[in-house]
Amino acid sequence: MEDIREQLLKTAETIQPFIRRTPIMESSFLNSLCGAQLFFKCENFQTTGSFKMRGASHAVASLDPDMRRRGIVAHSSGNFAQAVARSAQLLNADAYIVMPENAPKVKQKATAAYGAQLYFSESTAEARQAEADRLVKELGAQFLHPSNQIEVIQGQATCAMELMKQRSDLDIIITPVGGGGLIAGTALAAHVFGKDVKVIGAEPMNADDAYRSLASGRIEYNTTANTVADGLRTHLGDVNFPIIQSHVDHIIRISEAEIIEAMEMIWRIMKIIIEPSCALPLAAVLKNKEQFEGQRIGLILTGGNVDFAKAGELFASLGHSNE
Amino acid sequence: MEDIREQLLKTAETIQPFIRRTPIMESSFLNSLCGAQLFFKCENFQTTGSFKMRGASHAVASLDPDMRRRGIVAHSSGNFAQAVARSAQLLNADAYIVMPENAPKVKQKATAAYGAQLYFSESTAEARQAEADRLVKELGAQFLHPSNQIEVIQGQATCAMELMKQRSDLDIIITPVGGGGLIAGTALAAHVFGKDVKVIGAEPMNADDAYRSLASGRIEYNTTANTVADGLRTHLGDVNFPIIQSHVDHIIRISEAEIIEAMEMIWRIMKIIIEPSCALPLAAVLKNKEQFEGQRIGLILTGGNVDFAKAGELFASLGHSNE
Repeated sequence: MEDIREQLLKTAETIQPFIRRTPIMESSFLNSLCGAQLFFKCENFQTTGSFKMRGASHAVASLDPDMRRRGIVAHSSGNFAQAVARSAQLLNADAYIVMPENAPKVKQKATAAYGAQLYFSESTAEARQAEADRLVKELGAQFLHPSNQIEVIQGQATCAMELMKQRSDLDIIITPVGGGGLIAGTALAAHVFGKDVKVIGAEPMNADDAYRSLASGRIEYNTTANTVADGLRTHLGDVNFPIIQSHVDHIIRISEAEIIEAMEMIWRIMKIIIEPSCALPLAAVLKNKEQFEGQRIGLILTGGNVDFAKAGELFASLGHSNE
Repeated sequence: MEDIREQLLKTAETIQPFIRRTPIMESSFLNSLCGAQLFFKCENFQTTGSFKMRGASHAVASLDPDMRRRGIVAHSSGNFAQAVARSAQLLNADAYIVMPENAPKVKQKATAAYGAQLYFSESTAEARQAEADRLVKELGAQFLHPSNQIEVIQGQATCAMELMKQRSDLDIIITPVGGGGLIAGTALAAHVFGKDVKVIGAEPMNADDAYRSLASGRIEYNTTANTVADGLRTHLGDVNFPIIQSHVDHIIRISEAEIIEAMEMIWRIMKIIIEPSCALPLAAVLKNKEQFEGQRIGLILTGGNVDFAKAGELFASLGHSNE
């Protein structure tokens, strides 16, 4: 435990030049509605628009200089791509990012704008990994995993460390669960630095691999992952699963309608832009008001990189306009 | 001048229980893009979602108790309606709000949710005023004007007072110009409390009555006001015009495309939700980079009450998706 504490403190120090200390927002309306005190940690305001910058910058900074010189390989169509590209740029390394051919043009552009070289593969997990493996072999570069690597998990832990400094009286922290990097880091941070802070996950019903993994005691997979929360379609890994097993209290599953409803509330009431994945923690509170009554709850808003037209369509699907 | 200083300080004290001290946001990306230092005053996070709460709460609080007991009449389909309704609710007064029959259902609901009684009229300015006059006469209630009343102007001044406290080194403050209440209040505050702070207005080209009024020396009107900035379609009044003449440096006119472009940038880069009207100050800087180079500029983001579907349509009209 002393070791972990030291490592996490060192991580926070290492990445401090590369990240923003994001603010906490509150809404008296949402507090009344939920009967609890909610503290939203706004990683949508983080550099590159998501918390992924924490883990990516730590992983890149942790490479020895020789290794870093040979470059970094990652595959992602989303926030991790931009975070790795920006981290490599800040640390004078080359980044080689594998994207599916159908990745949104704007995400391609944003990643390239941070100086990364883009490679394209078919959109299956296998094809992306094969292309990444080829690059690693050919260039002697280092592969970075978005969630199942200890340096990345430690980086993500700094978000909850900051949050618990900003609000030292939290009872609970809720994070979305995708690949498991954020919730594992949050659970580590709460275990080491929290005073009895419980960590709870919120996961799409339609991609509930982590919920089933905690039940069965081994890593489960999604055969389909039909959810609007595009950041949460992946499964846990052998590095983060043991941490999640040890330190996460439980996982709450959220329906698609609940995700969209909570996302729209945050846009409308708090006037900030969040991705669908960020909406799950609020949805978890809204559907379990008795459980959370009177508690002080930190909710991690993971990112704000979202297509506005698509968001508009999601909100329209609720059948009530905010006009 | 001593009198005005005292009045404004007293105003800030009076409304302090009813409003939020809103944060200032910065974007290093937008700073680089503009070659200036931009400080965005986030009134989109204000109670009721706009700066109008400042002027409305001051006007309601300034009524003598007898008058207040007889109630308050206002006409508005937008932010002023909600601000008056909420102010009346907080100060135990009755609010009677005249709305055009075609006012958005959600704004009707929000206003009614603050306890206001709604009255409907045809949507012409004359019909709305006639219905308001009828209510004033019938109820003996007090009419509040959204921009051409000194108590409202003083309330709006507190926004720039706060901003100049949060950033004491500003060279310039830019506000949108609609009915003139905000820019008149800002100009008063800068004149009294600023150290050489210049106040500049940003106004839609398609509703440039204030620009023309400053040129001609008398209040000019818009024959049409075909702008997406729905908060800025109105004209100046005899109370705010002399203040604007004395203390506003100049007004910059903004095209519809420039408004939408700047609005989309604030959504995409800053991850916050603003109304079209808020985008004009940034658009003014973007189109006049040489003029603003190296300056420290406060930009007032006036509100965040916007229909998401309509915003999506506006962004789509730019012809480049953020997907």
